[in-house]
Amino acid sequence: VDVWDGDARVLDGIAAGAKNPLYLTDVELPSSVAPCHSMADCIAEADIILLTVPAQAMRGVCLLAKEPLLGTSATLVSASKGLEVATGARMSQVIASVLGEEVIGRLVALSGPNLAGEMSKLMPAATVVAGNDPSRIAATQAALSMPALRVYASQGVAGVEFGGALKNIIAVAAGMTDGLGYGDNTKASLMTRGLAEITRLGIAHGAQAGTFMGLSGLGDLVATCSSRSSRNWRVGNALAQGKTFEQASEELGMVAEGPPTSKAALHLAKGSGVEMPITARVHAILYEGESAEDAARALMSRPLKNEWSSEEAGPGKQAQAGRTPECNAE
Amino acid sequence: VDVWDGDARVLDGIAAGAKNPLYLTDVELPSSVAPCHSMADCIAEADIILLTVPAQAMRGVCLLAKEPLLGTSATLVSASKGLEVATGARMSQVIASVLGEEVIGRLVALSGPNLAGEMSKLMPAATVVAGNDPSRIAATQAALSMPALRVYASQGVAGVEFGGALKNIIAVAAGMTDGLGYGDNTKASLMTRGLAEITRLGIAHGAQAGTFMGLSGLGDLVATCSSRSSRNWRVGNALAQGKTFEQASEELGMVAEGPPTSKAALHLAKGSGVEMPITARVHAILYEGESAEDAARALMSRPLKNEWSSEEAGPGKQAQAGRTPECNAE
Repeated sequence: VDVWDGDARVLDGIAAGAKNPLYLTDVELPSSVAPCHSMADCIAEADIILLTVPAQAMRGVCLLAKEPLLGTSATLVSASKGLEVATGARMSQVIASVLGEEVIGRLVALSGPNLAGEMSKLMPAATVVAGNDPSRIAATQAALSMPALRVYASQGVAGVEFGGALKNIIAVAAGMTDGLGYGDNTKASLMTRGLAEITRLGIAHGAQAGTFMGLSGLGDLVATCSSRSSRNWRVGNALAQGKTFEQASEELGMVAEGPPTSKAALHLAKGSGVEMPITARVHAILYEGESAEDAARALMSRPLKNEWSSEEAGPGKQAQAGRTPECNAE
Repeated sequence: VDVWDGDARVLDGIAAGAKNPLYLTDVELPSSVAPCHSMADCIAEADIILLTVPAQAMRGVCLLAKEPLLGTSATLVSASKGLEVATGARMSQVIASVLGEEVIGRLVALSGPNLAGEMSKLMPAATVVAGNDPSRIAATQAALSMPALRVYASQGVAGVEFGGALKNIIAVAAGMTDGLGYGDNTKASLMTRGLAEITRLGIAHGAQAGTFMGLSGLGDLVATCSSRSSRNWRVGNALAQGKTFEQASEELGMVAEGPPTSKAALHLAKGSGVEMPITARVHAILYEGESAEDAARALMSRPLKNEWSSEEAGPGKQAQAGRTPECNAE
């Protein structure tokens, strides 16, 4: 495994002591991980290239790597979870817009409940790889699988990317309900209704409903909302304690993807007429000065309704398999 | 609100001090809650009757109350979460089999992430009521709603009942992964794949896939697997520490619904050819002496596969709405 990084300190640190000096600094890297100072060399020799950069940096990195990336036929795996704020685009759309439509067959999206600290300790986990070319999906699946990691395959690129990106908005809200002292019922309801609005937006933009019940939707949502090491959860928690978004960000010292993604999601939602009440409240708290308590009260006092309204393309509407004439069958 | 209980101590305790002397003993009940020693009187005067008994006791209670229940036109709301082990039947099926098909229009199933301790403290929560008669659903929704409880409506009786019952099996497994020291990635993956097999079984028995993405499926699963006060989680946790099912049950001192439900679910699964790998392992640990660690290893080493296999009626297969010709749309 060759590793390139824009920050030479990372490469020098790995070369010197088999550890990353900036992130997960206590994890010993296997001897098969080799730092590579030339991005072009790194790309030229690879069969599979993992792009693991913050969502807002994806376009810049692809522009930087355009020539070597177009010089190979390697599979390009995006592991970034976010939407580009300026365009609302998913990561595979950003990559294709820089490199050209001819790379679309080579693209694979990776997402799932994969908190890095736990992965580095080889705790059992699962993830999903989605793409358009079955042989590239299978090769990625085989390359990344190991006893502690089960890799599932999917054809649902849009859903896998939306799931990984949009769950960060709900994680901010989960940090808020925990910060307000609400319980497991509250957070479970929030996550359920959160996944419902994620699914609505995804369906309106080309995703399949079922993908959101998978590891990149439900699975990643559960892990991120449960973990107090999640950056997005921590931002929400600080907001519930009366801090401003600026103060919360400063305390965190890192970029949380949820806040910018809430902007991109609301923009997409408005354009497609999709209702996203939780995302709208999270955005209002982050950027419009609403208090977390007022937002919670507003969400609880909406008119009573059906779980899946007849207007929305909820997954319940489409699954008619197994319908029986039995009295109380659905 | 009139309350009847088979145990007169409960009724006497409420009459004496507005508290239940056996469960949630520190919660002060409002003055509108009146103990009622005559079950027949209690039933005769009610518009809505909530049946809140353990799943394996539902048939006996309905037999006991058969005459007064058939003497009214009240709505019958089942709040029990389990399958009858002897028959594999859902609660509404048990009630209808005792009272007759003519009550089917009067039945409503209630389920959701509603941990009792939190509800009694008025922490914000949501739940779902499902039935066949829209006016009875709406009346139940209106009667139970309050600022701290959002009640959603659904037509998916089978799915709401399966969700509430089957999630307890996965909660046993969640207690095991926590007991084995695994992390949030592991538990999130378990819950995701657990909901997938719950959904498969439900679809094979008349439920809609989308119902399982709602409060009674996903929502209740998340709350029960997250809460260390869940009985089922505690059974699994004790098993992971090397205790037998008998020892775990004795420590608990109450009935956990997950273990008997795993029996009923496997029976239904075999009859309908549905694969339930997690349920099978939970059953093997509870009743066949398998160790939790061996079960975890076996689950992680299954052949690699698609998230939703082409053989199963996964929700992803049916949702074609929003399909676009775009490059990487699903």
